[in-house]
Amino acid sequence: MWQLYHFTLCPFTRKVRALLNEKDVGYELVPEEPWARRDEFFDMNPAGQTPVMADPTRNILLIDSMAIAEYFEETVDKAQMINGTAANRAEIRRLVTWFDAHFYRDVTGPLLQERMIKRLVHRASPDASRLREAMKSAIGHLDYIDFLLDHRKWMAGATISLADLAAAAQISVADYLGGIDWSGHTHAKAWYSAFKSRRSFRPLLAERMRGIEPPSYYENPDF
Amino acid sequence: MWQLYHFTLCPFTRKVRALLNEKDVGYELVPEEPWARRDEFFDMNPAGQTPVMADPTRNILLIDSMAIAEYFEETVDKAQMINGTAANRAEIRRLVTWFDAHFYRDVTGPLLQERMIKRLVHRASPDASRLREAMKSAIGHLDYIDFLLDHRKWMAGATISLADLAAAAQISVADYLGGIDWSGHTHAKAWYSAFKSRRSFRPLLAERMRGIEPPSYYENPDF
Repeated sequence: MWQLYHFTLCPFTRKVRALLNEKDVGYELVPEEPWARRDEFFDMNPAGQTPVMADPTRNILLIDSMAIAEYFEETVDKAQMINGTAANRAEIRRLVTWFDAHFYRDVTGPLLQERMIKRLVHRASPDASRLREAMKSAIGHLDYIDFLLDHRKWMAGATISLADLAAAAQISVADYLGGIDWSGHTHAKAWYSAFKSRRSFRPLLAERMRGIEPPSYYENPDF
Repeated sequence: MWQLYHFTLCPFTRKVRALLNEKDVGYELVPEEPWARRDEFFDMNPAGQTPVMADPTRNILLIDSMAIAEYFEETVDKAQMINGTAANRAEIRRLVTWFDAHFYRDVTGPLLQERMIKRLVHRASPDASRLREAMKSAIGHLDYIDFLLDHRKWMAGATISLADLAAAAQISVADYLGGIDWSGHTHAKAWYSAFKSRRSFRPLLAERMRGIEPPSYYENPDF
């Protein structure tokens, strides 16, 4: 059985979990708080980040959410999420990087820092101006998603792909932390509503981070 | 003919160029200064980063250095650089992310900011303490490379891979900017010396960024 090191609000692990759930790959969750900088975790992954996947019986260690996603794309045929021509696949990977790097840097990362790390580690209040900045960036990102979905059914084209899982993973964490203003974003909202009902994604939305409550509409597909 | 948007010291473009050179894929270089935030460039790539590859005759646009690398791995058989079992391939991709994200964040990014952007854009002097911090981080990274190469011939295993190209790309930019102290790093030095002589890599080392001179030993395989 695969072990998956994660914490509840890790957006990169959520992308991987959505993929594993789509593919019906079983895994056991192992709680890890990367901010605690546990020595044994750094010995496994010098980058000190979740997700990490381990299969001790086969001596396999997978590190980095994109490397993990590519591994399961290559080894499990069901629910292919990096699909189509080489150019389609490049567009999927571009968008995964867009959400993992840019959405995270602008929105999810600052929200996690201000609303989770500060509370759990520093017992401090969030910086209101950094929160405002992150929420403003979120609006720009939702505008871009609206633009993409205005002429595509899914994020990267006609079929669901890893780009959708990456986007939903980041957005779900930002939404949990109260960082998303959905008003006016018709396409993004319809797309995310469908995601909230998806079998691979629903279990993630049911989980709670200790001490931090999501908004009341967080799990509701009709929001 | 592919067009490749780049600037001379872009480490992500260097990784892509080394790969294209290994694979004998032709391309025309198009100079781009992402820090100038040219509208037409942002219209092509909302992330505003090099490299971008375009084939206007076939209407193909490739964005993000890893998406580009995967595209050419999939479409050109020669010189496969993401090789081996699925687990080997995951290890290659982990290390590419390690160098692209962590080495860049700790070393190449701050050096480019202090020694290139500040000079070209702000006409300001570098911050000595940020430079010292980056050079100290570089030593830690070279220690890790020494550790990897102590029990592997190449970065990710027995054969050369995209992990080596990613590492050499980052290191070559940091070295150009005077950020690498090679003393004591026997394995890393021997590995990089071999790279300096490599047909795919030599042309990159011959290029100069206007107004910024590399150290005298920069191109010399015997350093």
